[in-house]
Amino acid sequence: MFAVFQYQELVERALQEDLGTGDLSSAIFPKSAMTRAKIYAKQKGIVCGLEVVEQVFKTIDSQMEIKRLREDGESVKTGTVVLELFGSVRSILMAERVALNFLQHLSGVATKTHQAVEDVAGLPVRITDTRKTLPGMRMLQKYAVRMGGGQNHRFGLYDAVMLKDNHIAAAGSLARAVEEARRHVGQMVKIEVECESLKQVEEALESGVDVIMLDNMDIQAMKEAVKLIDKKAIVEASGGITKDSLRAVAETGVDVISLGALTHSVKALDFSLDIGDIKEATRERWQKGEF
Amino acid sequence: MFAVFQYQELVERALQEDLGTGDLSSAIFPKSAMTRAKIYAKQKGIVCGLEVVEQVFKTIDSQMEIKRLREDGESVKTGTVVLELFGSVRSILMAERVALNFLQHLSGVATKTHQAVEDVAGLPVRITDTRKTLPGMRMLQKYAVRMGGGQNHRFGLYDAVMLKDNHIAAAGSLARAVEEARRHVGQMVKIEVECESLKQVEEALESGVDVIMLDNMDIQAMKEAVKLIDKKAIVEASGGITKDSLRAVAETGVDVISLGALTHSVKALDFSLDIGDIKEATRERWQKGEF
Amino acid sequence: MFAVFQYQELVERALQEDLGTGDLSSAIFPKSAMTRAKIYAKQKGIVCGLEVVEQVFKTIDSQMEIKRLREDGESVKTGTVVLELFGSVRSILMAERVALNFLQHLSGVATKTHQAVEDVAGLPVRITDTRKTLPGMRMLQKYAVRMGGGQNHRFGLYDAVMLKDNHIAAAGSLARAVEEARRHVGQMVKIEVECESLKQVEEALESGVDVIMLDNMDIQAMKEAVKLIDKKAIVEASGGITKDSLRAVAETGVDVISLGALTHSVKALDFSLDIGDIKEATRERWQKGEF
Amino acid sequence: MFAVFQYQELVERALQEDLGTGDLSSAIFPKSAMTRAKIYAKQKGIVCGLEVVEQVFKTIDSQMEIKRLREDGESVKTGTVVLELFGSVRSILMAERVALNFLQHLSGVATKTHQAVEDVAGLPVRITDTRKTLPGMRMLQKYAVRMGGGQNHRFGLYDAVMLKDNHIAAAGSLARAVEEARRHVGQMVKIEVECESLKQVEEALESGVDVIMLDNMDIQAMKEAVKLIDKKAIVEASGGITKDSLRAVAETGVDVISLGALTHSVKALDFSLDIGDIKEATRERWQKGEF
Amino acid sequence: MFAVFQYQELVERALQEDLGTGDLSSAIFPKSAMTRAKIYAKQKGIVCGLEVVEQVFKTIDSQMEIKRLREDGESVKTGTVVLELFGSVRSILMAERVALNFLQHLSGVATKTHQAVEDVAGLPVRITDTRKTLPGMRMLQKYAVRMGGGQNHRFGLYDAVMLKDNHIAAAGSLARAVEEARRHVGQMVKIEVECESLKQVEEALESGVDVIMLDNMDIQAMKEAVKLIDKKAIVEASGGITKDSLRAVAETGVDVISLGALTHSVKALDFSLDIGDIKEATRERWQKGEF
Amino acid sequence: MFAVFQYQELVERALQEDLGTGDLSSAIFPKSAMTRAKIYAKQKGIVCGLEVVEQVFKTIDSQMEIKRLREDGESVKTGTVVLELFGSVRSILMAERVALNFLQHLSGVATKTHQAVEDVAGLPVRITDTRKTLPGMRMLQKYAVRMGGGQNHRFGLYDAVMLKDNHIAAAGSLARAVEEARRHVGQMVKIEVECESLKQVEEALESGVDVIMLDNMDIQAMKEAVKLIDKKAIVEASGGITKDSLRAVAETGVDVISLGALTHSVKALDFSLDIGDIKEATRERWQKGEF
Repeated sequence: MFAVFQYQELVERALQEDLGTGDLSSAIFPKSAMTRAKIYAKQKGIVCGLEVVEQVFKTIDSQMEIKRLREDGESVKTGTVVLELFGSVRSILMAERVALNFLQHLSGVATKTHQAVEDVAGLPVRITDTRKTLPGMRMLQKYAVRMGGGQNHRFGLYDAVMLKDNHIAAAGSLARAVEEARRHVGQMVKIEVECESLKQVEEALESGVDVIMLDNMDIQAMKEAVKLIDKKAIVEASGGITKDSLRAVAETGVDVISLGALTHSVKALDFSLDIGDIKEATRERWQKGEF
Repeated sequence: MFAVFQYQELVERALQEDLGTGDLSSAIFPKSAMTRAKIYAKQKGIVCGLEVVEQVFKTIDSQMEIKRLREDGESVKTGTVVLELFGSVRSILMAERVALNFLQHLSGVATKTHQAVEDVAGLPVRITDTRKTLPGMRMLQKYAVRMGGGQNHRFGLYDAVMLKDNHIAAAGSLARAVEEARRHVGQMVKIEVECESLKQVEEALESGVDVIMLDNMDIQAMKEAVKLIDKKAIVEASGGITKDSLRAVAETGVDVISLGALTHSVKALDFSLDIGDIKEATRERWQKGEF
Repeated sequence: MFAVFQYQELVERALQEDLGTGDLSSAIFPKSAMTRAKIYAKQKGIVCGLEVVEQVFKTIDSQMEIKRLREDGESVKTGTVVLELFGSVRSILMAERVALNFLQHLSGVATKTHQAVEDVAGLPVRITDTRKTLPGMRMLQKYAVRMGGGQNHRFGLYDAVMLKDNHIAAAGSLARAVEEARRHVGQMVKIEVECESLKQVEEALESGVDVIMLDNMDIQAMKEAVKLIDKKAIVEASGGITKDSLRAVAETGVDVISLGALTHSVKALDFSLDIGDIKEATRERWQKGEF
Repeated sequence: MFAVFQYQELVERALQEDLGTGDLSSAIFPKSAMTRAKIYAKQKGIVCGLEVVEQVFKTIDSQMEIKRLREDGESVKTGTVVLELFGSVRSILMAERVALNFLQHLSGVATKTHQAVEDVAGLPVRITDTRKTLPGMRMLQKYAVRMGGGQNHRFGLYDAVMLKDNHIAAAGSLARAVEEARRHVGQMVKIEVECESLKQVEEALESGVDVIMLDNMDIQAMKEAVKLIDKKAIVEASGGITKDSLRAVAETGVDVISLGALTHSVKALDFSLDIGDIKEATRERWQKGEF
Repeated sequence: MFAVFQYQELVERALQEDLGTGDLSSAIFPKSAMTRAKIYAKQKGIVCGLEVVEQVFKTIDSQMEIKRLREDGESVKTGTVVLELFGSVRSILMAERVALNFLQHLSGVATKTHQAVEDVAGLPVRITDTRKTLPGMRMLQKYAVRMGGGQNHRFGLYDAVMLKDNHIAAAGSLARAVEEARRHVGQMVKIEVECESLKQVEEALESGVDVIMLDNMDIQAMKEAVKLIDKKAIVEASGGITKDSLRAVAETGVDVISLGALTHSVKALDFSLDIGDIKEATRERWQKGEF
Repeated sequence: MFAVFQYQELVERALQEDLGTGDLSSAIFPKSAMTRAKIYAKQKGIVCGLEVVEQVFKTIDSQMEIKRLREDGESVKTGTVVLELFGSVRSILMAERVALNFLQHLSGVATKTHQAVEDVAGLPVRITDTRKTLPGMRMLQKYAVRMGGGQNHRFGLYDAVMLKDNHIAAAGSLARAVEEARRHVGQMVKIEVECESLKQVEEALESGVDVIMLDNMDIQAMKEAVKLIDKKAIVEASGGITKDSLRAVAETGVDVISLGALTHSVKALDFSLDIGDIKEATRERWQKGEF
């Protein structure tokens, strides 16, 4: 649950990128020209970003009227209308591209996540994201992961401890590293350790960490690790997992699979905005649903 | 040519997303622990974003020493080291993920652009981007397109006129729309018209526009349009062009092909950061090149 | 066409400059004191900035009621009321000075532009601005130029190429400079070259530039240049043009005259705000138009 | 005395206005091309803004070397070099226009102030500014007034009380208004009253205000007011004072004359930047003063 | 009198500190769950910050309905309800802590000021604050001092002159320092001098300063200073004044006592937010006052 | 571990509050006047904020030389010098107050925390803060708590789940609330439940939460709760704990005691800045340590 003001700055930056010193083409339209418009999907997938899209239009023009026909996280197919608008033609054209850019990317993230979740359907495993996000978009990308049916791994360096080989080397041993970390952080912070071998998994278990990450292990090693850990810590698989290997990894019994590609390599989900008949448009008729 | 201060705000936002209230894991390292590190490619492609990466490390720690071994736009293969660092271990770990996030995405854009440029090699055609960019990243994404060998289409609504069906409908005719646009903008602004038929191409030609976009036309129609236009305007092909059809489109004789996917559906190019031996590290030895 | 959010930051900065830690004088008024007020011209000219003025009052007090009686670009004479207000006396006084500062300056720019446009009336020439603008005010100043009947030259270094003597010297020749520029920029960008002699004009023509600027040429040279160019490029006159020489320059046949003074040396157009009778003020009576 | 960080935001905004997504023309120059350059006056006047100018160049390029040859507040004549630079050609051209825009405007303010100060030379009167400043520029414009030999009136609504007719009407009487104001503000705040008649001047005197403003009075009335006040308060003349009437007003014996035009109607003082020979430029030779 | 936009940035920063990437706990509540809530005092004191509190809730949720039952500066006792809310449960919980943090601190400042004002009741002396404020909170803390019945000393280095020992030493003498200061500042600026001895008080008097501060003097010295100054300047006592010595200091006849602790060492005044019955909540019933 | 850029904005805001349009008093000093200065404690306590203090001086003047003699978290007594400076007198005076304001407050927080830690010395219990922080200061206040020997509770609503009575009521039962929360958050998030009775403690235990908070329980109830929980969850005591009851609470065997007063009711620790002899000051002598 975040609030509109938290992404308002990003909305304005994105609009500013596109508007610069003003839309040169819109002078063709009289200031008073009004129209209805709709945004619809051109592909099958999970829609995400509709609140942000609304905020993009509202930022350009506080008089814009908006009806949301779908909610974030719902599935759409080719032709599904997700949003209807009524307002100034100039305003709609000024906001269109930026609105679609948000929608296409976030729906892309949600759709990719949803596919991964489907791929492991029926297995007791969670799909999560990573910190491999696009600059400035982390909060929204992680929201899209949730809308796609995934969960969020830590949001950054600040909300959980993750100890890697460098930390362990510096501390002298895995146990020392965990102990040191525990001494510094409060009672609300979980500690995860990245393990590359079963030996490390054993050490991690002994030191009582909350989560053990199996880093780039093969299927067999993962199975052994899961057995070894035996519910005494949460088990996360990460690294080098592809669409092809995903279900096999899930079947090893790990609790969580984290996938960087959910946020770093996203294919946009295609949406379009269509403008209705400008001549017939009045706010009253639109509000009555007459056209 | 842009200046560092122009992307500094984005760098700080991206770091803030990751750092939040501080790195919980780095307390393991003594404040004085120094090390060298290197960033290297894990895939073949075009590197882009090294200046931004430098700025990420400098923002975390102004004492960080950095040697760039490659320049933006150069090709790399698996193992190519693009940057070497020397500095505080804590600082390197605090900056690592954000630096790689920039590098992987921008190199992904450059690499994708480069592939498209290769695909039309030998033909007198330019590959350009569109306004379908990721929120907040437009300036850097368009830079990456240039580094990949492409050119930039307009940057936004403000630096060129593009007249589409809605503009034409509103003005009454294509000719009126162009005339109206010309009346409003200064002498430094080019005017492009989106055409869906050869008839529209003829009208556009008559109205003396600078650029004619062939929107979602088939190969045959494009060939006829190119013939019709006969160098009296720049010809741009856009819409529905895939890797498979790209060369065929280029062979129609169009001057420019614009591709939204260069920036809206990007696969990250994989890079990694490796930390050297912390125990042996001194600034002096690093500066002398001893390790 | 730009949106309110694009100048909101400037409006708040300007208000902050004036309000600082708060208006010390307004404590005289009870919080509930309401009044009507009007803003009127004290000189003849072109009004510009009314939307910004509205935004200044709305930023101080979202309850302020505002009626606009004139639109940007219309002419006013001494006494013309351009805006009426109803709201809290404290709010009106807190916003007054900043609102007038915007209005006086932007109307000054529009009026100065209008005078130049009048001076060349009947001739097929356009008056444009330059990049010699006041820091932080470029978008609004260029808008005021349009409202005064002028057009905009390029907005900055980013939306068109202008090659000057230094560029030419560095490239080796004018032709090389143009060729180099063309290689770097996309198809939507125009190229202008600054020429100081007829010889340079010839070179510029040959290199096929879009716009040729005649820099500080005398009337006779300009005439010859216009003849030489013969509609093959747009011709711009710039440098050292005064109110006295303006028409003569226009009569040489150049297409565009650019004038730095439109934005760098502006005389404010005088406006005043008058407050009505505080005792009789109620929102209802004002809305009914009773006083 | 203010600090660089206080105008850094304005410097960046001004640069951003000009640079947008980057300088399209500078690609002509190789990245390594260096040069010296100088900024010199093209008119007689008072220079102001050199620190800001330095900051503009440093913001674009921290490697820029700068020698200041004049200080803010000094007089210059045609040809006086005020600043020398050495650095990247690209950087110099990216910063040039914005630097000159600051310099020309602030020097314009200082020069205009200086002329007013000269006009009242020998008389015990101070020239001050008003709150009629350009949006976003108040701190710098008021600094330029000081550099031109003037003093500053209050900076805004927050650092002194000024009671006008509306305040007096609302309070019931001038005495009540002053009393009320005094009750609200601390011991460090001065109170000024705007008087339109000698009767009001008498009331103001009785209420013990610190400063009495004679608003739009004629010369004779001012003389009588000065006599009446007899050093018991500071006397300020304001409103409708032109270059022609300035000395006569000063001779009435008022202590202060405030002039809105110092900041709202400014003629830029002309400065130019010249680039030296790019081929011969090396940082070493420049530092040694060899060219 | 300041405007909402002036503290909006601080409100958003404070909310951002608490919300980060979103409230993890509120997912328990259905999005549609509504409730009423009230904020009440848990201690006796002066309430301050209600406008800011309103703005905190409005920033999270523009649909929130708010009734203010007390105004800033009024006294409250245990149980006094100061504000009632109706809106989404999620929104109320997201804003609660930040709203209370503002309210508790500002009410703490107002209450502490009020106690000091009470301690000197009946004596002609003013209680003021200092520049010893908490970073980022100065405008609001100084407002709270006014709401507690105190006045404000200067707001910062910019709105009045204060000359201390270092200034005097640098200028050579107190008289020179004052003269120098007067030469630099405008007619609206008051000058205060910090005096540590009666000899300095005499010098200050002779130089005609507006305010004389008795710095860390004992009661006897203050009495003599007051006598010596004899209303020719405002007398301020400062330094080392405790609750125990406050009235004695006031009885010396000084005009002003300034207390750093009003803003640098503040005890929060305790307030709580109680949520009503979620099940029965409807906007209509709340608006009708039914629950 | 956070980076300087993360509090730079707060440093600039705090400076801007104090500097406004510039320091009026510093004109007394010649621009070239240099001096050394030292900051020393005037009370016994724990120093905190020295890095921020350094940044305050560097922001005003990048030429300032600074030697830190103590580190954050060390104890000081009356007279302990914590920092030495050399630089422009004007710069030192412009930064002084803001630097001390940070130092006094953060050292106040660290000192108060240290006292609480001392009060429970020898017992296996941790002292933590809460979300009751001052607006805009949370990251720095929580840092000061660590420097005083405490740990941090959650930083905000985003980094851990805390379920209170309202959450439980909304979900129907404590078990349902925990289950619901667990479904929404990722594997790295801990869940805490606020319990007001032993019955609730039992339910919390059964639902397998990570942390159980005993809210406003009496000593006897806490003892029973600790016994009941028997290390199966972390036990936190919170609410109504005073200096007097602190040790008794600790002796109940709870793992953590959280105290709102550490950050909401802070007494500044007194520090002063003394300026050395301006006449003898040279940078060289200071660097050599000669004065």
